Amino acid sequence: MTISRRTVLGTGLVLAAKPWRAIPNAAAAPASAQPAVARASSIVVPNGSVLPSTIRDGVRIFHLRAEELDHEIAPGLKIKAWGYNGSTPGPVIEAVEGERVRIYVTNALPERTSVHWHGLFVPHGMDGVAGLTQPPIEPGKTFRYEFVLDRAGTFMYHPHADEMTQIALGMMGMIVVHPRKQARERVRDFCLMSHEMSVHIGTARPDPLAMNDFNVLTFNGKAFPATAPLVAETGDRIRIRLANLGPMDHHPIHLHGHAFEVVATDGGPIPTSARILETTVLVPVGTTRTVEFVGKAGDWALHCHMTHHAMNQMGHDAANLVGVNTKGLDQRIARIAPGYMTMGTNGMSEMAHMQMEQPRNSISMVGGKGPHGVIDMGSMFTIVKVRDKLAGDGDPGWYQAPAGTTATEATADELSRDGIKVT
Amino acid sequence: MTISRRTVLGTGLVLAAKPWRAIPNAAAAPASAQPAVARASSIVVPNGSVLPSTIRDGVRIFHLRAEELDHEIAPGLKIKAWGYNGSTPGPVIEAVEGERVRIYVTNALPERTSVHWHGLFVPHGMDGVAGLTQPPIEPGKTFRYEFVLDRAGTFMYHPHADEMTQIALGMMGMIVVHPRKQARERVRDFCLMSHEMSVHIGTARPDPLAMNDFNVLTFNGKAFPATAPLVAETGDRIRIRLANLGPMDHHPIHLHGHAFEVVATDGGPIPTSARILETTVLVPVGTTRTVEFVGKAGDWALHCHMTHHAMNQMGHDAANLVGVNTKGLDQRIARIAPGYMTMGTNGMSEMAHMQMEQPRNSISMVGGKGPHGVIDMGSMFTIVKVRDKLAGDGDPGWYQAPAGTTATEATADELSRDGIKVT
Amino acid sequence: MTISRRTVLGTGLVLAAKPWRAIPNAAAAPASAQPAVARASSIVVPNGSVLPSTIRDGVRIFHLRAEELDHEIAPGLKIKAWGYNGSTPGPVIEAVEGERVRIYVTNALPERTSVHWHGLFVPHGMDGVAGLTQPPIEPGKTFRYEFVLDRAGTFMYHPHADEMTQIALGMMGMIVVHPRKQARERVRDFCLMSHEMSVHIGTARPDPLAMNDFNVLTFNGKAFPATAPLVAETGDRIRIRLANLGPMDHHPIHLHGHAFEVVATDGGPIPTSARILETTVLVPVGTTRTVEFVGKAGDWALHCHMTHHAMNQMGHDAANLVGVNTKGLDQRIARIAPGYMTMGTNGMSEMAHMQMEQPRNSISMVGGKGPHGVIDMGSMFTIVKVRDKLAGDGDPGWYQAPAGTTATEATADELSRDGIKVT
Repeated sequence: MTISRRTVLGTGLVLAAKPWRAIPNAAAAPASAQPAVARASSIVVPNGSVLPSTIRDGVRIFHLRAEELDHEIAPGLKIKAWGYNGSTPGPVIEAVEGERVRIYVTNALPERTSVHWHGLFVPHGMDGVAGLTQPPIEPGKTFRYEFVLDRAGTFMYHPHADEMTQIALGMMGMIVVHPRKQARERVRDFCLMSHEMSVHIGTARPDPLAMNDFNVLTFNGKAFPATAPLVAETGDRIRIRLANLGPMDHHPIHLHGHAFEVVATDGGPIPTSARILETTVLVPVGTTRTVEFVGKAGDWALHCHMTHHAMNQMGHDAANLVGVNTKGLDQRIARIAPGYMTMGTNGMSEMAHMQMEQPRNSISMVGGKGPHGVIDMGSMFTIVKVRDKLAGDGDPGWYQAPAGTTATEATADELSRDGIKVT
Repeated sequence: MTISRRTVLGTGLVLAAKPWRAIPNAAAAPASAQPAVARASSIVVPNGSVLPSTIRDGVRIFHLRAEELDHEIAPGLKIKAWGYNGSTPGPVIEAVEGERVRIYVTNALPERTSVHWHGLFVPHGMDGVAGLTQPPIEPGKTFRYEFVLDRAGTFMYHPHADEMTQIALGMMGMIVVHPRKQARERVRDFCLMSHEMSVHIGTARPDPLAMNDFNVLTFNGKAFPATAPLVAETGDRIRIRLANLGPMDHHPIHLHGHAFEVVATDGGPIPTSARILETTVLVPVGTTRTVEFVGKAGDWALHCHMTHHAMNQMGHDAANLVGVNTKGLDQRIARIAPGYMTMGTNGMSEMAHMQMEQPRNSISMVGGKGPHGVIDMGSMFTIVKVRDKLAGDGDPGWYQAPAGTTATEATADELSRDGIKVT
Repeated sequence: MTISRRTVLGTGLVLAAKPWRAIPNAAAAPASAQPAVARASSIVVPNGSVLPSTIRDGVRIFHLRAEELDHEIAPGLKIKAWGYNGSTPGPVIEAVEGERVRIYVTNALPERTSVHWHGLFVPHGMDGVAGLTQPPIEPGKTFRYEFVLDRAGTFMYHPHADEMTQIALGMMGMIVVHPRKQARERVRDFCLMSHEMSVHIGTARPDPLAMNDFNVLTFNGKAFPATAPLVAETGDRIRIRLANLGPMDHHPIHLHGHAFEVVATDGGPIPTSARILETTVLVPVGTTRTVEFVGKAGDWALHCHMTHHAMNQMGHDAANLVGVNTKGLDQRIARIAPGYMTMGTNGMSEMAHMQMEQPRNSISMVGGKGPHGVIDMGSMFTIVKVRDKLAGDGDPGWYQAPAGTTATEATADELSRDGIKVT
């Protein structure tokens, strides 16, 4: 896959220096002169990429390849996923309102597929429901979709053939259609797509039959601590386009330190009169929610608030030993179950802090390195890093709080002065 | 049960030729002259019916009978359900704002019941909470509820006694109260109630203890491919009144090809200033959501976007064999488990396309016949069929897309012209 | 723990006689003259309490103690919970917009903790994410948080260290920040926080690993029939501040007999133009929803509409025997499983009405005593009791409906007059 220089796979984050508006002008040039990769993009896809396009006779042309691929959720856990052009979710399709697009879809999977353009208004025959609006794309075949993008917004693409399997294995992507008329205000514009999978410990294939017990939850295909931060400057308008294709859970995405306005769904922009402020937006399955806010300096957690969606694989199935005296238990159980190790008698935090031996191809329940020790989170957890002034486009490291503004241990004098008795 | 001629059970769809407004005038005639069945209704209940009523002394009178019944979810799956007047969900109660209604409820179940009028403002004693606002209706007894409908909208009815069992087995229905002042614009007005059940393979009794593993999801009691389409003409204003009584899931209902406005909840109409556009509306348990949009020509999927809610019984519990070479596995397992058949090594789509021998009283995971082959969907999936001109009230068959507007295989010339390399 | 005289633990309900406005004036007095307990509060916390505070040099000072505690869910079920200051949820933190607060947090748990002030705008270092914004509070330590409350609203506090365990065991609380300018209208102002736990039958420790099968659902830590009612007078404006910290379910909270306006989230007030009426508000995990309505006389159910969230522990795991003839089954099974008793062959209501022998430390699936017999509900179910005139602050008992306004058995004459045939 050809990767635009403005996007990043896996680590770090590159901010767009040039706005998207370069594209329509470029389209006026002779088609043969068009570059083979996308021009300057104004969106940022943490851990992901934008799908390259070319322009020919005024039509923007894309090529999606549905295929099996190896994907790393976080160091330690690799899965056999299905996706597009080497990644899950697939690259973001980016275009401008009013453009005609032609999207070729090659099926390199072992079974039929199709692509539905979720939220776009396309003719019946381009809607991508295999059996209903088109024949399925058989393995090895390439289909052509073509339509005009009649409105701006944040949309999605996914198969509409054997959805249970294909979505479960990772086939999904976002579509960003920019308005023809550019906003005057500069915006930090992020795309974040959630997913949930059940990857049984020691296996590499997400289980498409899982309905409830998801244990790997991701933003743009990555679980914390592998999620790249969202970087901005103090006072920037920050836009996050949240997308959820399920399969089963409506995710409440919470941002620390700010309230945001929900400004659009995949149905359209939300009029000012209908907007509400939230600190947690529920993103139902099969929807996008675009939120905007002005950044304040700090490192601000952004995560799904369902507690089991902010932790990784291990722990969901273990016995409840909180408060249990397990002295000697390991040895006794180990006689019948070699390698057994009790966990969590004082809660689970201790787990994140010990160097446990991980089962093959699995990741710790929680735990990323932070500036103040271990961060007890996993899966759908990432960080919005806002700095007064950014030096470059990369990860700015940890926030240095001004002196005296961090919670610390209270001194005996303070406790005494304020009449606090600690017992 | 007497069925109004304007409603349909099981297949097809009859559109109302006359508006609901006939009813208030009818009420002015002498009570003795009233017909025993409902007059022209302006709502359409796919796969369902409207509850007949009579008028006496200006009071609209209904009779609900809570009872066990045999119900077909889709050809191949029959269940022993509980419902009202022979169906699950029960018939839609339809009336006009300001009317006084008297509803008799006969309990033909083996246990106590009651009826709560969800969303209606009724006096405390008519609220239907057994034990709290009234004694329960014992088996064999008939109770009388009476109140004035003080506002228009879309509401629901269900038992408020042993809810876990009675709702799980199918006891629920919709209530449509039309505004006294009729809108000038013609509206195609559909009622669609969702439900979810756990019917273990080979059994016929929904399991009321199921909390998570629902495997039969329905619109108006039917699972795709048995769901009747919603039929309209191009340019029609289409209203869909979505209702959800659970028991446990908030359903994100997605419409293809259109964005709709959410215009009302069971709390009341949504003011214009507060309306937002969506392509997927989340309908939480215990709510109604009324959506409106203008139809475009085509066959447009309307479905719950949770992937396991758009598939039927089988498949949720099987082993994950995607990518596994199962050659010879069937024979080996068959020695210990006669009849065993592996499935889904290349995904699940193959399942929909083979003539599997189904277990007794069960339906395929997915699969309805479409114009372009098998439609890989089940359960909460139906089709909004919009035609430029309808010939009659029935199912218009499959949409014929204009030439050149359907996704098809790309030719070698096209691929070459557009610089697409298929590998 | 010192308890304000205006709050109530466990039973009954005390209404505030004096408004909250006393507090800012009090703050003007010399710090040394401040009382050690909170002054008159204008909020009511059914089954809960308000956290005492003192004022010193214009700073409002609180002290939270994170600790293990014994908690009664309802008579018959006691759990070993984790909470704050002796209760789960912890006491409500109440203050006024613009106030500077200093909150000491003592960790009396066996593992690290921290406190995140969900929805408040605090400096990065006060945000409470262990590892990211501060070091964790080690067992035995007391930390000091300090910040200014820059806006009014309903917020929450909870640990941001080993959330899965600490939230599952009960660590959470609400924060109410009153506007500086008091509203002219009197409001009955209630705080209600939901929680869900999995307490396996016969155990006392909530299982932090539970993801789906919650069997104890609570409002302010109590399951029906132990939930205290919300009491008001006819015509009162009633405000209910609903808060949900999960861990996993978005609760649809339904009120009978009224529609309410959703007036605020934890992000801020909802502008009038964006408000909608509902009878059921979905409260996603990690959010607050404040609703307001004018009370009508009666006893009105307020409950989660997910059927398994309005029932208690038993029943979720039993066999489905609805419609099964179990005659003789008990005796036969009892030979191999002593004490076995079949249940629910005619539905589950019969269970609520028999005097079953409960397993040790467990509560019936459903069942509270009502004025008309057993109320078949449990868990997240409570009652809003509205009376034309209240005699005092306590529970006013059951509502006496005016004669002729309660659903009752229909007489033979009525059935004959209205043409109803009961078969």
